[in-house]
Amino acid sequence: MLLAAEQRHRSRLCVGLDPEPSRLPGRWRGDPAHLYDFCAAIVDATADLVIAYKPQIAYFAAHGAEGQLERLMAHIRVTAPDVPIILDAKRGDIGSTAEQYAKEAFERYGADAVTLSPFMGFDSVEPYLRYHGKGVFLLCRTSNPGGDDLQARRLADVPGEPRLYEHIAALAQGPWNRNGQMGLVVGATYPQEIERVRAIAPTVPLLIPGVGAQGGDAATTVRAGWRGDAQGRTTGPVVVNSSRAILYASGDDGFAVAARAEAQRTRAALWL
Amino acid sequence: MLLAAEQRHRSRLCVGLDPEPSRLPGRWRGDPAHLYDFCAAIVDATADLVIAYKPQIAYFAAHGAEGQLERLMAHIRVTAPDVPIILDAKRGDIGSTAEQYAKEAFERYGADAVTLSPFMGFDSVEPYLRYHGKGVFLLCRTSNPGGDDLQARRLADVPGEPRLYEHIAALAQGPWNRNGQMGLVVGATYPQEIERVRAIAPTVPLLIPGVGAQGGDAATTVRAGWRGDAQGRTTGPVVVNSSRAILYASGDDGFAVAARAEAQRTRAALWL
Repeated sequence: MLLAAEQRHRSRLCVGLDPEPSRLPGRWRGDPAHLYDFCAAIVDATADLVIAYKPQIAYFAAHGAEGQLERLMAHIRVTAPDVPIILDAKRGDIGSTAEQYAKEAFERYGADAVTLSPFMGFDSVEPYLRYHGKGVFLLCRTSNPGGDDLQARRLADVPGEPRLYEHIAALAQGPWNRNGQMGLVVGATYPQEIERVRAIAPTVPLLIPGVGAQGGDAATTVRAGWRGDAQGRTTGPVVVNSSRAILYASGDDGFAVAARAEAQRTRAALWL
Repeated sequence: MLLAAEQRHRSRLCVGLDPEPSRLPGRWRGDPAHLYDFCAAIVDATADLVIAYKPQIAYFAAHGAEGQLERLMAHIRVTAPDVPIILDAKRGDIGSTAEQYAKEAFERYGADAVTLSPFMGFDSVEPYLRYHGKGVFLLCRTSNPGGDDLQARRLADVPGEPRLYEHIAALAQGPWNRNGQMGLVVGATYPQEIERVRAIAPTVPLLIPGVGAQGGDAATTVRAGWRGDAQGRTTGPVVVNSSRAILYASGDDGFAVAARAEAQRTRAALWL
């Protein structure tokens, strides 16, 4: 689904749907009742430009707006039926609880993929893999200041003393990756680390947040993470996320037009 | 709040509220519309026996039952005003998203504490600490089969080559623990590891799931994790969680009476 959307829309751009009430445009500003209206308008303005959408559940949950998220998921499905939806939830729990979260993501919200934390190990991921045709993106290397705190530590008891994030990349490419359902989340701030993850995990999709408002450079990010064969066919896909730079390209009633223009610019910058 | 509840109820028992529709008693079986009714009855039957309640958000989110969780939180507050409520959510995200999750846990649901994953580092935890008087329990050592996958790895570039979970315990006792707001989640299956965490983090509250249905022994768990001074006053608290053994002590209309009896047994076993 990801590869088809990439080719059809000639895009590696994922639009992150992280709506903050205080940043909604015009009359909607400050009113969480308009999270759906805002995001739906962004989807309408960008549906032909993206490889994926990534709604962030926290922005809805903080306001008791799960119903608006359900409507948004349905709206994306109708408006852009060929575009995968990655629910950004970063869940991480065991056994029966993981089953509940998988049900939430895949059945209640109808997501195509979900972001997960690998911290609790393989059996915290496995319940999601039972949904055939659905994907998971494991947190691997995040580019926030605290990303180093644990992820950059070297592991003394794993051959080669990889860093924790490198070990996760190896697990996701190999033993944990049943049926090709697994991708990795790697921040855009450190292109060398994207390259390192790609060397360890040559074929898994990389979800790369941090281009745009967070400062990562688009072309550098794609060169570090995307891989193709001699015919230019994608063998190692990247899904490069931009949220705030697109959502808040304009704070007034022209926000959707401005969002489309910014999405076009970012899409072009990512299509080398 | 935790220490006051421990002394008032002479209890180290936390009742986990993880309601599965398929395990609800009698006429409610299979109907997610009765998650609140079931949990509220469990609370009514155990309010004088516990040090804390721990609702697990996934069991509500899977069924679109956030409204029932809101009602349950309010019901606990009224029924057991002196009992802290730990929202088990295992969130882990950065900056502005963490702020949204903190708002969800502390403002929307009114929890006293929330469980978090430390994987993304300190700045993924810090937004929660801005809520003074609220607590966070960081995942440290989980006793599921995959808990070893990452948590048990030795860190080559930290002095002493601690295991990842030992490093997290040190962070939670020291540099990350502003205003004494931090606790740790440590599974009950391996008492030696509880002892190890307690040696590294002598004063933080330990939230210990896995007694009861998951098989951990009550007395062994308390000996490994609880610490007191010469007068028997608690200096290193434990919050020992049991969910299924209490919730599903009986599958018929006598479930609340059976839950109370099981909670009394477990509370006694934990009060050495």
